[in-house]
Amino acid sequence: MERKYQIGIVGVTGAVGSVLCSLLQERKFPIAEVFPFASERSRGKKIKIKHREYPCRVLEPKCFVGMDLVFFDASDALSKEWVPQAANDGAWVIDNSGVFRMDPDVPLIVPEVNGFLIESQIKKSFDQNRVANQFKTRVFSGPNCTVAPLVLALNPIYLKFGIERLVVSTYQSVSGAGNEAMKELALQTEATLKQEQMQPKVFQHPIAFNCIPQIGSFFSNGATSEEQKLIDETRRILNNNSLPITATAVRVPTFSCHAESVNMVCKKPFQVAEIREILQRQPGVSVLDDPDNFIYPMGKDSVGTDSVNVGRIRKDYSIENGVNLWLVSDNLRKGAALNAIQIAEVLLDYIQ
Amino acid sequence: MERKYQIGIVGVTGAVGSVLCSLLQERKFPIAEVFPFASERSRGKKIKIKHREYPCRVLEPKCFVGMDLVFFDASDALSKEWVPQAANDGAWVIDNSGVFRMDPDVPLIVPEVNGFLIESQIKKSFDQNRVANQFKTRVFSGPNCTVAPLVLALNPIYLKFGIERLVVSTYQSVSGAGNEAMKELALQTEATLKQEQMQPKVFQHPIAFNCIPQIGSFFSNGATSEEQKLIDETRRILNNNSLPITATAVRVPTFSCHAESVNMVCKKPFQVAEIREILQRQPGVSVLDDPDNFIYPMGKDSVGTDSVNVGRIRKDYSIENGVNLWLVSDNLRKGAALNAIQIAEVLLDYIQ
Repeated sequence: MERKYQIGIVGVTGAVGSVLCSLLQERKFPIAEVFPFASERSRGKKIKIKHREYPCRVLEPKCFVGMDLVFFDASDALSKEWVPQAANDGAWVIDNSGVFRMDPDVPLIVPEVNGFLIESQIKKSFDQNRVANQFKTRVFSGPNCTVAPLVLALNPIYLKFGIERLVVSTYQSVSGAGNEAMKELALQTEATLKQEQMQPKVFQHPIAFNCIPQIGSFFSNGATSEEQKLIDETRRILNNNSLPITATAVRVPTFSCHAESVNMVCKKPFQVAEIREILQRQPGVSVLDDPDNFIYPMGKDSVGTDSVNVGRIRKDYSIENGVNLWLVSDNLRKGAALNAIQIAEVLLDYIQ
Repeated sequence: MERKYQIGIVGVTGAVGSVLCSLLQERKFPIAEVFPFASERSRGKKIKIKHREYPCRVLEPKCFVGMDLVFFDASDALSKEWVPQAANDGAWVIDNSGVFRMDPDVPLIVPEVNGFLIESQIKKSFDQNRVANQFKTRVFSGPNCTVAPLVLALNPIYLKFGIERLVVSTYQSVSGAGNEAMKELALQTEATLKQEQMQPKVFQHPIAFNCIPQIGSFFSNGATSEEQKLIDETRRILNNNSLPITATAVRVPTFSCHAESVNMVCKKPFQVAEIREILQRQPGVSVLDDPDNFIYPMGKDSVGTDSVNVGRIRKDYSIENGVNLWLVSDNLRKGAALNAIQIAEVLLDYIQ
């Protein structure tokens, strides 16, 4: 009989947490029992997964004892404090925060690209000679919501033709900033249509009918934290620390799905048809590229889909070996919850 | 006493035409009388400019006789048919359509960049030896609404440091597609918030809370007409037909103002501070670049402003001499009506 697992979910009422719960059910994840964690405000709130209801708990010392696997979909601050406790209490942890993504002791995983790192991490965790930060050998990180779709689409091209340089501009939905951000877009949009003002709370500026060229905080080099994550994490997952990348991350007034305008210069010559074929063969990627019939990826069609949708694949005539792509994916799915579950699925294959 | 002029405006009830009327008043344009032209539907509708009301007319043979200057802010089809008639009837024409922009006999003008071409065109128009297409010597073109702001910001950098290559991704508001498009965004957004469906009419796809990576029609090379215009017209205005440019043009759910994420590689080394200083000195450009205080260009602040607002000016570390910019401008003003009036102002200086 298939083994079933005790699963913790930290941040279960959040935008990513909610999608994670549906995906656990949708993907028939081998659940014995679920332990949903949320803030004090949601204590006791019932979370329904696979026809069973589980009351929300709050985080407290030793709360993870007995769990096999804990998903963290909350803030950086919460992950920083509680991921070590979960791992020290014996659980495997899949963390979607930014805390461990660049930690050399924690692998940053997009399973289709570097899922093989999961096995070596498991082996490390059984190595008794490692003492310092032993908890980290039980932790896996998922990347930023712009990065998972990007590397999934780029990796097969990178492996075949090499990448000389990447220029990315993003069109990111508000759901990346959580449920409150989605409410803010809805209410502020309604107010704006009635010629009323509504002060922003989640965002620095009004987002209704407005694009904001800031996601995260600013570094002294002029980049935002979101742009730097896109650069650093893409490099780490493609295993090339000097890969030339530049990015501009922009919040646009859409509820869900992130789009990315990707300009890429390859190292080797290619035919556009080859790029299209490579992408068609890549598991997790769907090519939607039939402009004559007005078919290209859009957020409205990508909500609730698991694939990274790629289109507008065309030669960039401004440089040798240049190509442009437009990709869209559900930032709460492949960008977060789905990727985390996929990591867990590979992990369970090894430890079952 | 200052000479005053008989002014025709074709497309006066459109999105650009309406802004043109306000700007004529705002800029104290030397108007004797205005002749507004619109479709049959608007015949007789009163257009108020400088405390006088003018009834809308429809286009008919010889309708431009006696006019000094005619602005065309309508469709390509109307410009194609009526611009030659207006010019042959003796008027100077400032055309905002795409029809003459790449015509070697018609200069494509952003006054701050290549306003000097206006004088040579005037001289040509007085050259009696030119017979073929004589009407074109009385025509001036204004560029695509993404191009005027782009070249205005780039030109001083281009002159000082050279440009090796440009990668542009746009975030374009619906007003670029006219008044009906603005209504569609408003009504469709309202419907979507009520969970109702509203079929798109102006756009190929729903625009409410959705980004559409298509503006214009597709060419066989995979680019859209909007992207090709950005490339061709930028090259023409910067007077460099082989300038390497690639572009991705995207419609975003905002009412007004176009934003552009610009990645530029210069030919010569520069300090970011020098780029900022050059832009600060450029008439028509405002630098809004104080990220620590959340100051950067946004559509919500740029509506109704005349300047091209530039911010997020930062080094691109992925390549030598790389720099990123984010620019926003009111597509109905500098992107169209304002630029047309500025062309007219230079023209009147010469012919008065």
